[in-house]
Amino acid sequence: MSIKDNIFELGKNAKKASVEMKLCSNNQKNTALSNLVKNISKNRNKILEANSIDLENGKKKSLSNPLINRLTLSDKSIDALLKSIEDIITIPDPVGLTLEKWERPNGLKFRKISTPLGVLGVIYESRPNVTVDASCLSIKSGNCIILRGGSDSFYSSKELVNNITQAFSEAGLPNHCVQMINTPEREAVDYLLGMKDYVDVIIPRGGKGLIQKINSVSKIPVIKHLDGICHVYIDKDADLEVAQKVVFNSKMRRPEICGAAETLLIDYKFKEKAMEILKPLKQVNCEIRGDEFIQSLDKDFKSASEEDWSLEYLDKILSVKIVYGVEEAINHINNYSSGHTEAIITNNEETFKKFYKKTDSAIILKNASTQFADGGEFGFGAEIGISTDKIHVRGPVGTKHLTTFKYVVDGNGQERP
Amino acid sequence: MSIKDNIFELGKNAKKASVEMKLCSNNQKNTALSNLVKNISKNRNKILEANSIDLENGKKKSLSNPLINRLTLSDKSIDALLKSIEDIITIPDPVGLTLEKWERPNGLKFRKISTPLGVLGVIYESRPNVTVDASCLSIKSGNCIILRGGSDSFYSSKELVNNITQAFSEAGLPNHCVQMINTPEREAVDYLLGMKDYVDVIIPRGGKGLIQKINSVSKIPVIKHLDGICHVYIDKDADLEVAQKVVFNSKMRRPEICGAAETLLIDYKFKEKAMEILKPLKQVNCEIRGDEFIQSLDKDFKSASEEDWSLEYLDKILSVKIVYGVEEAINHINNYSSGHTEAIITNNEETFKKFYKKTDSAIILKNASTQFADGGEFGFGAEIGISTDKIHVRGPVGTKHLTTFKYVVDGNGQERP
Repeated sequence: MSIKDNIFELGKNAKKASVEMKLCSNNQKNTALSNLVKNISKNRNKILEANSIDLENGKKKSLSNPLINRLTLSDKSIDALLKSIEDIITIPDPVGLTLEKWERPNGLKFRKISTPLGVLGVIYESRPNVTVDASCLSIKSGNCIILRGGSDSFYSSKELVNNITQAFSEAGLPNHCVQMINTPEREAVDYLLGMKDYVDVIIPRGGKGLIQKINSVSKIPVIKHLDGICHVYIDKDADLEVAQKVVFNSKMRRPEICGAAETLLIDYKFKEKAMEILKPLKQVNCEIRGDEFIQSLDKDFKSASEEDWSLEYLDKILSVKIVYGVEEAINHINNYSSGHTEAIITNNEETFKKFYKKTDSAIILKNASTQFADGGEFGFGAEIGISTDKIHVRGPVGTKHLTTFKYVVDGNGQERP
Repeated sequence: MSIKDNIFELGKNAKKASVEMKLCSNNQKNTALSNLVKNISKNRNKILEANSIDLENGKKKSLSNPLINRLTLSDKSIDALLKSIEDIITIPDPVGLTLEKWERPNGLKFRKISTPLGVLGVIYESRPNVTVDASCLSIKSGNCIILRGGSDSFYSSKELVNNITQAFSEAGLPNHCVQMINTPEREAVDYLLGMKDYVDVIIPRGGKGLIQKINSVSKIPVIKHLDGICHVYIDKDADLEVAQKVVFNSKMRRPEICGAAETLLIDYKFKEKAMEILKPLKQVNCEIRGDEFIQSLDKDFKSASEEDWSLEYLDKILSVKIVYGVEEAINHINNYSSGHTEAIITNNEETFKKFYKKTDSAIILKNASTQFADGGEFGFGAEIGISTDKIHVRGPVGTKHLTTFKYVVDGNGQERP
């Protein structure tokens, strides 16, 4: 069978399965997830063995340390995986909810009901845990899934998919509700991205380059998680202690995640206190790149170039700028932000209102760390990513965001006049 | 200025205006719309004169009758336009609504708030009324708009845009909240479809070919209204009289609209009554194209080819097929439907449930005409189209569907552990 036929076969199977998935109850879906917890626990050693083959191959190919880290499964990471499946079980069923309900004068009764999207195509790097996370989120939201993981995690993912399909099929979920693309060729991805009759949404997980490429090729709508160029703005009406805590946490808790702050904007009326904000950062070796005023504060502070305002450092580096009022802060953010997450430090409700209305980002926080940008912290349970799109879903993408809706209308013979 | 610079100038202006639009109150937006009603009433003759230039040019170019009809403004169509603006005034403000609200154990207070999408690019044929409808729906939902109408309506649209910009600016809406592309060159559209930094959503209105082309070129998300291949399925548990009324209305009320039924599926247990359904259609010269059994009912009934099941006739033609149970009906619909609207005639709630859960279309009606697929009939007020996408919005697209949301989070210094 050609690669094209092979991929289209997966697509047709998934589409067919997706119709049956729509009738699966929450109980059935949760049983499937419980089965998977049991399977993975039971087959833990087999999974680790498969992973060791991938790791050996990866080392032969001299994969970089971060890539090896992402590829590596351990007893600890398998425990985390099991915990995440159990968390997904506790999420309420996002399918079949009556979102709105109304009646019209002609007697027609309208319901807007949440339904699965249908078939998801998830494309990701060589991270075996995504194989499990994505499959579980997908079936919990009533969707079928076609997985395309990085080829370096082939054996781990294959072993995990074996566990998944057995667990799900024992619970009576339709065959083919989870399928994996096994051919390593890149053209397989192109066929996947072109199957708009069979796949409803593409979700890429990985670096910005990968996501942009997928988005430009795909004939299917893409839910994108691009970069997180997040800002903290310290308003003139900020509390110094809150500002110190929030800035430090926003940058330093985990500088490598997309919700980490990359740029700090300080109102000129607050600038005398700027050093009190920056000193704790300097003490933990966070590099400061600032405008002229900021540079003048400390000989170790470097100059921020125009390019710095658009950089996602994902590292212990912070660009810092004095701005003349909240309007300049909003303009700066709307120019340079990736639309992910912004925080304002202020005690002024009016300023906060202006700030959250006019900044065009998914998440706006007042007096709290940008690192709260996370599905778990929002109470959504596990997330499949954080959308920087404005269409369909913004911010953390949990199971309830992997649904669409339909209108169901009850009549008794109404004709339209 | 080059065409490219010209279009990008419009984009930048719109993006800038969209930030200010976010602060406009419902009162201000409604004042703008009332101003427009006054302006159009006052300048009615000027508008009709501009339209007569377009009509003259159109006749010189030998435009077809349907095109001339769409292009033509009259006292009656201007009255309808004024009425539609007044209807939009009565729609509740879709912006700034608290859609969800919750608190987390750490004291963070979350709100999910509806916000405008930002900038809409609306591309349409030479229909001057769309210039007004689209502009009004756009500002009511807090969006700025870039209009690209067909070149045959240039003078009418230009005159209408003059009325619009004056009316809106008098109400204090930002300059550039409504802009029109004045260059007739096709490359202008390509630049518009590529400006993803300035335009948030593209909404094409027109034939399927136009929409597919725009969708394949656009770098910006498109809200699509493709074809309406709508079905009526008469279940074994149907009431004959209801079936007669609904089928006749679904096909014949206005055969040329997207919500008209194109295919009738009849359960084999109901087939003895098929002629009682089809006879009233034959009497009004509706062509019947059926399977073997249907053809055997009347010498005038023609044979349906495989292609017929995928055709949007938009005319007095109906394809008819006997199916063996609701599952076959669902399969047929999921294979051939455009995902727009389907109706089932049944008194069996279980059958209805299975039907609406498993058919993958935006609107599912029980015992009511498919021609109710319309924003007005849904109670949404005016609509900008009917989405056959599953992402973001399905079915009639009213002002509330031209919004997105953001999360606004109130804290008091929370750091993420």
